[in-house]
Amino acid sequence: MRIFFFALVLIFSQTNGRSLPKEIDCQLPDSLKTEIHGYQNFVNFILKHVVKGPEANQTYNELAKFTDTFGSRIAGSTNLERAIDYMLTLLYNEHLDNVHAEAAEVPHWVRGKESAELIYPRQKMVALLGLGGSVGTPKDGIIGELLVVNSFDELKAKADQVPGKIVVYNEPWIDYPTSVKYRQFGAAEAAKLGAVASLIRSIAPYSINSPHTGWQDYEDGVKQIPTACITIEDAEMFRRMAERGMRHSLISIYLYIYYAQVHMVQAMIIMVVLVSGHLDSWDVGQGAMDDGGGAFISWRSLVILKRLGLRPRRTLRVALWTGEEEGIWGGQAYFNAHKHEKDYFSIVMESDIGTFKPLGLTYSGKNKDAQCIIQEVLKLFKGINATQLQITNEGPDIGVWENAGVPGASLINQNEKYFYYHHSEGDTMTVEDPYYLDLCTAFWTATSYIFADLKDMLPR
Amino acid sequence: MRIFFFALVLIFSQTNGRSLPKEIDCQLPDSLKTEIHGYQNFVNFILKHVVKGPEANQTYNELAKFTDTFGSRIAGSTNLERAIDYMLTLLYNEHLDNVHAEAAEVPHWVRGKESAELIYPRQKMVALLGLGGSVGTPKDGIIGELLVVNSFDELKAKADQVPGKIVVYNEPWIDYPTSVKYRQFGAAEAAKLGAVASLIRSIAPYSINSPHTGWQDYEDGVKQIPTACITIEDAEMFRRMAERGMRHSLISIYLYIYYAQVHMVQAMIIMVVLVSGHLDSWDVGQGAMDDGGGAFISWRSLVILKRLGLRPRRTLRVALWTGEEEGIWGGQAYFNAHKHEKDYFSIVMESDIGTFKPLGLTYSGKNKDAQCIIQEVLKLFKGINATQLQITNEGPDIGVWENAGVPGASLINQNEKYFYYHHSEGDTMTVEDPYYLDLCTAFWTATSYIFADLKDMLPR
Repeated sequence: MRIFFFALVLIFSQTNGRSLPKEIDCQLPDSLKTEIHGYQNFVNFILKHVVKGPEANQTYNELAKFTDTFGSRIAGSTNLERAIDYMLTLLYNEHLDNVHAEAAEVPHWVRGKESAELIYPRQKMVALLGLGGSVGTPKDGIIGELLVVNSFDELKAKADQVPGKIVVYNEPWIDYPTSVKYRQFGAAEAAKLGAVASLIRSIAPYSINSPHTGWQDYEDGVKQIPTACITIEDAEMFRRMAERGMRHSLISIYLYIYYAQVHMVQAMIIMVVLVSGHLDSWDVGQGAMDDGGGAFISWRSLVILKRLGLRPRRTLRVALWTGEEEGIWGGQAYFNAHKHEKDYFSIVMESDIGTFKPLGLTYSGKNKDAQCIIQEVLKLFKGINATQLQITNEGPDIGVWENAGVPGASLINQNEKYFYYHHSEGDTMTVEDPYYLDLCTAFWTATSYIFADLKDMLPR
Repeated sequence: MRIFFFALVLIFSQTNGRSLPKEIDCQLPDSLKTEIHGYQNFVNFILKHVVKGPEANQTYNELAKFTDTFGSRIAGSTNLERAIDYMLTLLYNEHLDNVHAEAAEVPHWVRGKESAELIYPRQKMVALLGLGGSVGTPKDGIIGELLVVNSFDELKAKADQVPGKIVVYNEPWIDYPTSVKYRQFGAAEAAKLGAVASLIRSIAPYSINSPHTGWQDYEDGVKQIPTACITIEDAEMFRRMAERGMRHSLISIYLYIYYAQVHMVQAMIIMVVLVSGHLDSWDVGQGAMDDGGGAFISWRSLVILKRLGLRPRRTLRVALWTGEEEGIWGGQAYFNAHKHEKDYFSIVMESDIGTFKPLGLTYSGKNKDAQCIIQEVLKLFKGINATQLQITNEGPDIGVWENAGVPGASLINQNEKYFYYHHSEGDTMTVEDPYYLDLCTAFWTATSYIFADLKDMLPR
């Protein structure tokens, strides 16, 4: 059996605006506290070993080699298939146990050529990226008049103007979960009112003329219209033009989409603490940040422990998911194949919101004692100021396990600029820092080891 | 007679790394100090009038309307000609005296289609912008092997490997004057050793996959090879690939350049304190920052004073230069036509390094008393913390006047991110802030008025 897995980054990937919980009043038994504190030397050793010792810079170097060689890795692509084979070989050569891939079905959506050009009141090329799952335009493209709205409410208020128009959403950046609804549902909402296409202002807080792609969801029974994201700069300009009374701006859009439906792809798992990230990426940039970093600190954790001959009480598995970007296809397939094992998983972990300076962990379970244990474990990382605990669901691919009652955790990191690069050509090795990758690797290695090694599983 | 003017931004546009001079020991006569301090109420009034009064937001709105309507404005383009006619009409309608354009010859370099694609070891589209003045490639492009160097020294050390190669310069960002030499002379240096083309890492401290264009200089007697800038991300990746021993990376480059030599264009001047900015821009983005902002705070200064019925002792002229980006063609033409007036110019001013939060003025003269007077004038702007004085040449178009002994000044502003956007698609209205534009406008209006109104001209 071979699988890869994945998850809907749309809803989960956002730490902004989340408030830190107050440290709760914990009543852990002294024996458990002593057990946890006993790992302090181990933590210190791993930090030194990874950050200043023989493993220093290796996560960065491995990630750079991987992303430079394979580039972007959208589900179903040859790039991803080659990347999976490469990882299987690499992990096999590191003598990890039970290196294998499992099968998952994923959509295979392929961007062809695309372009957009403002043709009235003046000529201007408009940078754009078709959105994942979008249909293409006719061969000669679409020429239409723009209707700019800042919200779904404004769209509805202008319903009589929508038929035949190309709707531009110039929604403000608030935070990812709030603003991404325009990317996700903008085409369907515009189509219901008769629009012929929709253009979405990129979901990002900052731009240097970069369009940011991502998945979008058509609605059953609603006409599927071509949809793409444009830059913040162009969306703002179209809005200003409209406000000056230029009501007849014309744009020509051309999207050529190959769309090969569901596709079998590989995935690997090494197995019952699960650490993970997704190996697939969008089809732009290098997928170095989303989620090369998360995937690489995960497999590196196991390799480092293996090289050191450190074997925790419980099995540590690494999963490198596939088809995350199109909606957690690999994550779901893995859950379907392994849900009978759910009582054996102490915790499932995924890093998918950046691997900048590590700050702590999210925890998604409801059990207060488990929260207390994680809080106590995090105190071991005072030396690198990575002691934050946030209560939330985070990793997209582990969401299905969390919903089934398995405790989940994700890496909190200093990711204020994450959405500068997210799903754009800007997601490359240039945003990655070797030292922070080392810190994340050490933190991820030590925390997953401790969870796998504690005498008792985390209470649920 | 109609003129426009311009200047070499290459050398001057850089405030980073410059140290502030200690306040010098000034012995200004009390009467002069009293005269200067007498402008405090005027300064306060202008600040209030522009920032909170009827002129608030108008610089931003005018600039947005202008840049949205005309877009990029490279010398010799229809965009720029239309923009000049628009400005002539606008200033004429504001009843400024003697609104006219003067003639200048400028190069007219026109970008056609261009693209680059890595074809080995894997396919990847490479974002690029041909550099100003570059020749095109043959119709079918050029396919060549990459040779990556980090410096001219490394290029020379690898001289035997250069023939037939496409040289990639991956020079680090140090500061603009240091790093821009690779853009300026990279093609000529590579051609001397037999390269067939050169690609320059964009001259910028930060990137989200944006190429940054700019002028480049071939050398007489050296073969002219096609040259373009690529992104920081791709330059770094090519370097990493080379360091891993991939010595045979192949790239295909296609540049189609229309190149219409010297061209007559218009320019306007309203005249003997000169305030100025350049109206031309690169052919990407909107030229909102470089130098829409500088041009717009300059003409706005005169319009605001005119509307208020304020007339200084000396004439205030505004000049909106042309052909700055290709090497100060308009600035030079204006100097040639007006140099006989040089003893009547108290000071020449230009803003061309951004119109973010204003911080003070540069001063390029050698006379210490003039420096003391400017220092004293700047004290009037304590209320907005715009009292910095730096001793340096700054405005590119006024450099010819400064070299002829006329005192020059330029706007210091909080422009740490200037080179994020410079000469790229990112130079749009999105980087401009209405409030800071108001502050700059008020500061520019008040300082130029005071210099034009002081009883005596600035000593030389």
